[in-house]
Amino acid sequence: MTSRILDRADLDFLLHDWLRVGELLTREPFAEHDRDTIDAVLDLAEEIATERFAPHNRAADEAEPHLEDGKVVLVDGVREAVTAFAEAGFIAAAVPADHGGTGLPFTVARAALAWFQAANIGTASYPFLTTAAVNLLLAHGTPEQVETWVPPMLDGRASGTMCLSEPQAGSSLADITTRAEPADDGSYRITGTKMWISGGEHELTPNIIHLVLAKIPGGPAGVKGISLFAVPRYLADGSHNDVALAGLNHKMGYRGTVNTLLNFGEKGDGAVGWLVGGEHRGLAAMFHMMNEARVGVGIGAAALGVTGYLHSLEYAGTRTQGRAVGGRDVTSPMVAISQHSDVKRMLLAQKSYAEAGMALGLYCSRLVDEKDTAPDDDARARAALLLDVLTPIAKSWPSQWCLTANDLAIQVLGGSGYTRDFPVEQFYRDNRLNPIHEGTHGIQAIDLLGRKAVMRDGAGLDLLLTTIRETTARAGEHGEYAAALEAALGRIEKTTATLHGAGDPDVTLANASVYLEAVGHVVVAWIWLEQLLALGDRSDRFAEGKRAAARYFFRFELPRTGPQFDLLDSLDTTTLDWTAG
Amino acid sequence: MTSRILDRADLDFLLHDWLRVGELLTREPFAEHDRDTIDAVLDLAEEIATERFAPHNRAADEAEPHLEDGKVVLVDGVREAVTAFAEAGFIAAAVPADHGGTGLPFTVARAALAWFQAANIGTASYPFLTTAAVNLLLAHGTPEQVETWVPPMLDGRASGTMCLSEPQAGSSLADITTRAEPADDGSYRITGTKMWISGGEHELTPNIIHLVLAKIPGGPAGVKGISLFAVPRYLADGSHNDVALAGLNHKMGYRGTVNTLLNFGEKGDGAVGWLVGGEHRGLAAMFHMMNEARVGVGIGAAALGVTGYLHSLEYAGTRTQGRAVGGRDVTSPMVAISQHSDVKRMLLAQKSYAEAGMALGLYCSRLVDEKDTAPDDDARARAALLLDVLTPIAKSWPSQWCLTANDLAIQVLGGSGYTRDFPVEQFYRDNRLNPIHEGTHGIQAIDLLGRKAVMRDGAGLDLLLTTIRETTARAGEHGEYAAALEAALGRIEKTTATLHGAGDPDVTLANASVYLEAVGHVVVAWIWLEQLLALGDRSDRFAEGKRAAARYFFRFELPRTGPQFDLLDSLDTTTLDWTAG
Repeated sequence: MTSRILDRADLDFLLHDWLRVGELLTREPFAEHDRDTIDAVLDLAEEIATERFAPHNRAADEAEPHLEDGKVVLVDGVREAVTAFAEAGFIAAAVPADHGGTGLPFTVARAALAWFQAANIGTASYPFLTTAAVNLLLAHGTPEQVETWVPPMLDGRASGTMCLSEPQAGSSLADITTRAEPADDGSYRITGTKMWISGGEHELTPNIIHLVLAKIPGGPAGVKGISLFAVPRYLADGSHNDVALAGLNHKMGYRGTVNTLLNFGEKGDGAVGWLVGGEHRGLAAMFHMMNEARVGVGIGAAALGVTGYLHSLEYAGTRTQGRAVGGRDVTSPMVAISQHSDVKRMLLAQKSYAEAGMALGLYCSRLVDEKDTAPDDDARARAALLLDVLTPIAKSWPSQWCLTANDLAIQVLGGSGYTRDFPVEQFYRDNRLNPIHEGTHGIQAIDLLGRKAVMRDGAGLDLLLTTIRETTARAGEHGEYAAALEAALGRIEKTTATLHGAGDPDVTLANASVYLEAVGHVVVAWIWLEQLLALGDRSDRFAEGKRAAARYFFRFELPRTGPQFDLLDSLDTTTLDWTAG
Repeated sequence: MTSRILDRADLDFLLHDWLRVGELLTREPFAEHDRDTIDAVLDLAEEIATERFAPHNRAADEAEPHLEDGKVVLVDGVREAVTAFAEAGFIAAAVPADHGGTGLPFTVARAALAWFQAANIGTASYPFLTTAAVNLLLAHGTPEQVETWVPPMLDGRASGTMCLSEPQAGSSLADITTRAEPADDGSYRITGTKMWISGGEHELTPNIIHLVLAKIPGGPAGVKGISLFAVPRYLADGSHNDVALAGLNHKMGYRGTVNTLLNFGEKGDGAVGWLVGGEHRGLAAMFHMMNEARVGVGIGAAALGVTGYLHSLEYAGTRTQGRAVGGRDVTSPMVAISQHSDVKRMLLAQKSYAEAGMALGLYCSRLVDEKDTAPDDDARARAALLLDVLTPIAKSWPSQWCLTANDLAIQVLGGSGYTRDFPVEQFYRDNRLNPIHEGTHGIQAIDLLGRKAVMRDGAGLDLLLTTIRETTARAGEHGEYAAALEAALGRIEKTTATLHGAGDPDVTLANASVYLEAVGHVVVAWIWLEQLLALGDRSDRFAEGKRAAARYFFRFELPRTGPQFDLLDSLDTTTLDWTAG
């Protein structure tokens, strides 16, 4: 059984029919590209994902990274895959031409990356992190820093990492204790331990550039005293910097990505690092990378959701079992399980979650292009604001619901789905990481309700609601969906006001996760309505599938939000009132 | 960190304060036991679970069963655990004294078993299956069959298995093709391949008694032509029966339980088997075992849910991170994460799912005792009927929601929860089997809506609703909860009538899983109200915890059913109308 990794027809629909990526190509930074370029990039992504990434996905899970003679050993194929990715120009895909990149729209680069995430998320995470590091340096590095570190990362000579967490400080970045002492030559000496560092040590690339959060002594307490440093594994003179691998983490899934505990400066004087951005301004710089990574995590979760859907769809079309409800003649041949309504429910649910998760991620990626290249300041500012509001949702919603999709993919396959003979159980284990890393579900919830919903006097949330209302206003034949969506928007407004009018921040934030989930479902209903409108009167099988998934979402999913808003409106304090134990 | 395996105080509360197991002890079959016996049995279960089962739980996951020289090799400790279980009398716990058992109430035996399931579900499944085989033989075997096979199973010389599925027939038992040809001596010769057989081959016990579904040629087509056979691995003369291990399945979790593909009669003449129960009446006999197994699966899921809750509770009380919402002074010490409302939400949700799942399973076990030992015929019949209706819920609800509980346990631990350094990720992987085996979620849904809800003109469902209304009628101070529950019962009645009045069985059953989930949530709300009433005016920490979990369930969970009933009432055909692909 060979199942499709992703659905190219869907990506084409999302990029062109819906997001109108072609319009971007009329803008100066992208002017040298056309639809043929985009098609060729996606063709190439599919080809390399299929030939270089997918084949070792299971092997990388079964034989996780381990140490031999102090070196991290990965399975065969990882290095070739990462090298092929870089050599084909995918790390450089969205990097402007004047920095040595291809200068494609970010949206296209993300759609291309999704192929690799779906084929093998463990291996894809190495170039994913490197790409994020490149973008951070381009945004915050000095010209000299860019010149030193970006070219090797673009062509596969160096990887990038994000070093935020410490053993005692995961979600609580205010409490990091890694120190950075200024040295005479303008560099710093970094001392401390960093935890959960993906790609922290390996032999995939000659060098690794660690982007490290640390505190310069004498600065403010908490997050306001955090600075960002670039700390290469090897220094310019070829010597090994004082960065030491202190241990590997052994995970439930995502095993292809080596995850490390790193000691900086354990030999005494500190690892040599260079300040990126201003002193004490590290968190803002890192959040440039982090926000991009968060949308990328959401797309990765969606990619796993889509590929799980396609695998279970393939299985359900070939596996026979039982007969139709109305035809109980046991001497008649069995039917494909894709004809049973409960299996169809599980397939349609997956489709409604996974395709929407992908669409939401690409919509946010389109906002990145818009904020960077829209012709007028106002359009750029609006795109940036909308992206800000949507980021916690684009990270958390696919992480939650595309994991659910993978759960359903297992269930479609039944006992087979629970075995390691089929890939769906790995998708499920891999996807389980996504609600945890790059800011947990609970952190995204506080970000949305405590920060994004009220920033600038609620201007971000207002913009989201206005944007959705622009869609409902042109819903046409989809009036029933539009009405349901408008009612839900009204509930968001009322609930947000109620929560922030509680007069007690504990009460306001007590059920922030419920708020995140409810608003997320409303946003995704909007994404489905958007897709319906982009279909127009198309009547092929693809369009009918989209309509069925949209109908599923509006009938089975959006109504879930009613009790959630009710609960929030009641300013429920059940969790606050309970002392755990 | 040592976490509790289960909460003994909760088991005592459920067994004595709520289910009044003491009243059973006044009945003749249990008259020789008293509260001290029950306490001693639970003490012993905890001791053996802690000392013999828990220690190798991780090892059995890491080194799954494999073949060496044709023999199944399990990790050290499994055999000792299974032997200790049998020698302590736990397989014989609920077997009547005249068959060599201890003659305890079934409810007590199940509560004892839960300790082993929580400590190590992979190893616990061996005696679990043997116990079910014993009970089946006692109910359907001839005196000679009982005498031959039951004693060795009680004392650890033989194990039992259930051989239902075949490669081409999983959920669709009508389509099994294993044949049983009558032999001259009254026995049969069995030929065919059985799939997904847990405990199908191992060296834990000298013999294995396979209980096998097969068709006697010339019988009716479909399930009406299925008969049940006992097929021992070794025959009375010591020779190896023609049962051959054809392969091992490699699973995502539950790895400690060897899962096999077995060939019967591959050498030619067929494996020697003996008919258990009448010809063509095998499915009914097997369902005696299966129904008991289904409730047991639910308790196993709940046991994993409870132990995951206790582990994450322990972690959350010791791990510090961040500060209270109102206290953002970053120079103050960090607080235990169990003080954060979102962590409390995740803990309370687990508690509300897992303790209710356990309570529901023990309630159903109490019905087993009632149907077997109640003093009058009417009470026995009512208990049997109520058990019949509740069985699909007691199997599926904990399988779904205690898996969700394990998901939340991982999330409480964050990155640590995703590593194999902590046990919660294994609980999650192990628990993922439960919605699949012993009848999938979708099969339970059809059983509830298509069969149990309408059998005997709806008498079973009526009895359930009446039983719940007897609880709401004495709700006293919990009037708000009782009102919510009564409203939900009205919805069950209306929705059931609407679905069965659809005039098209496809439409009736299209969303059977949604029906199962909605009714399941209503039943569990009732279980919570029942527990509250059993608490009375108790005001200790235990009681406050129960009240918080009940409040959580009534405020966060029961309202989920509103949109589900709305959907069902609309006779939605979204899944029927879609052609998968």
